[in-house]
Amino acid sequence: MTQQHIVKSYDEELNRLTTLITQMGGLGEAQVASAIQAVTKRDSELASRVVETDRKVDAMEREVQALVIRLLALRQPMAQDLRTIVTALKVSADLERIADYAKNVAKRALVLNQMRPIRTVNGVQRLSRIVQEMIKDILDAYVDLDAAKAVEVWRRDEEVDDMYTSLFRELLTYMMEDPRNITACTHLLFIAKNIERIGDHVTNIAETIHFLVRGEALPVERPKGETTIYAVVEPEKPAEGPGGESSDK
Amino acid sequence: MTQQHIVKSYDEELNRLTTLITQMGGLGEAQVASAIQAVTKRDSELASRVVETDRKVDAMEREVQALVIRLLALRQPMAQDLRTIVTALKVSADLERIADYAKNVAKRALVLNQMRPIRTVNGVQRLSRIVQEMIKDILDAYVDLDAAKAVEVWRRDEEVDDMYTSLFRELLTYMMEDPRNITACTHLLFIAKNIERIGDHVTNIAETIHFLVRGEALPVERPKGETTIYAVVEPEKPAEGPGGESSDK
Repeated sequence: MTQQHIVKSYDEELNRLTTLITQMGGLGEAQVASAIQAVTKRDSELASRVVETDRKVDAMEREVQALVIRLLALRQPMAQDLRTIVTALKVSADLERIADYAKNVAKRALVLNQMRPIRTVNGVQRLSRIVQEMIKDILDAYVDLDAAKAVEVWRRDEEVDDMYTSLFRELLTYMMEDPRNITACTHLLFIAKNIERIGDHVTNIAETIHFLVRGEALPVERPKGETTIYAVVEPEKPAEGPGGESSDK
Repeated sequence: MTQQHIVKSYDEELNRLTTLITQMGGLGEAQVASAIQAVTKRDSELASRVVETDRKVDAMEREVQALVIRLLALRQPMAQDLRTIVTALKVSADLERIADYAKNVAKRALVLNQMRPIRTVNGVQRLSRIVQEMIKDILDAYVDLDAAKAVEVWRRDEEVDDMYTSLFRELLTYMMEDPRNITACTHLLFIAKNIERIGDHVTNIAETIHFLVRGEALPVERPKGETTIYAVVEPEKPAEGPGGESSDK
């Protein structure tokens, strides 16, 4: 924030915007990796560091916004430059959200670390690994203005949704097996959901890049919309409880 | 989308932007109301209508974006107008997210309606009522450029977070009471979470309005960050199950 007020060329300022975005993306990806490590390694110190570092990402988003306003006001960009600038604003908003989800995961890690370990933690790690790769690749696509790569990353989100759905079912099953698992599994459900949402934001960025490069929206419906919404999981042996007046399923 | 290409004055185009935002907000608020009604009245037809209508909101966001790009490119706005235009872009993104959460609630209503009723549905309704009022009031603040009102709405989000936290605990308790409740309660947890997130997006809009009117960020940390993250709920009578090797809490 202690940026020098040097008169820079227009190109330099546009490059600064791209650099800021890639730095923000790199930090976001590192935040996701650390948050998940805090869960899997039960590392509360790391979790706290992720929570703390989120301010940096927020500050970077504000810096992007300030630079965008400056470029719009002083340079009055046209056509492709204008699209580049508006794109940066959109991508930075998605990156801020991605980092925010990582922070949320880290906060939940702090709670989970106080409880007994749950075995599904590995499923969360696998899910996260794909999403981290998607973030890396979409940042490459952004820098290289590679629409084909963006589409390829965009497609990978389907795998994330599938993995999330089976993780969701698995977690519900653990909850049904033993009520002592319910609180921990609920936090893991939300952690998994956060990672799945990060995948959605990567697809947003992919769509934005595609629009920037090709000048048109992706022709197909986004692969978004996870299917756990429709998940109905029943306990193996139904407990005899009150309130069974209505039919299940 | 069948907009006539009439040459309009700059002021007319700026007004069109505000009108679009308020229409989008009105539709978003209606979507939230209908989605919750679909849950409480177990109305699957209404739920399907909410899912369908979400396309309209998406189309409106694209219309805002197109108008913003047009205004930036052709009118080269300065100072306050530039801020008004960038604000519209940010607010429309938040409204799109709000409607998206409503759609998610509606999708979950479709599943819940196939299962036996859960009593906490009323808690979800109360939570939603506050959030709906917040949406209405923030749209008024946007039209009137009323920063004080925006701050007032912003503060109300704390109440939403508190209600959400107690709802979260209540739902965990129901899950522990009877494993047959687990799937339905999990969907209700996500519904409650969606409503809580809508509240967060309203506070985003409040911050954007404050910045637009006063030219500076809100001086205090946002009330965001729900506290359920730290919720540890234990079953009343711990079941004797396997895997209790590690200490709880």
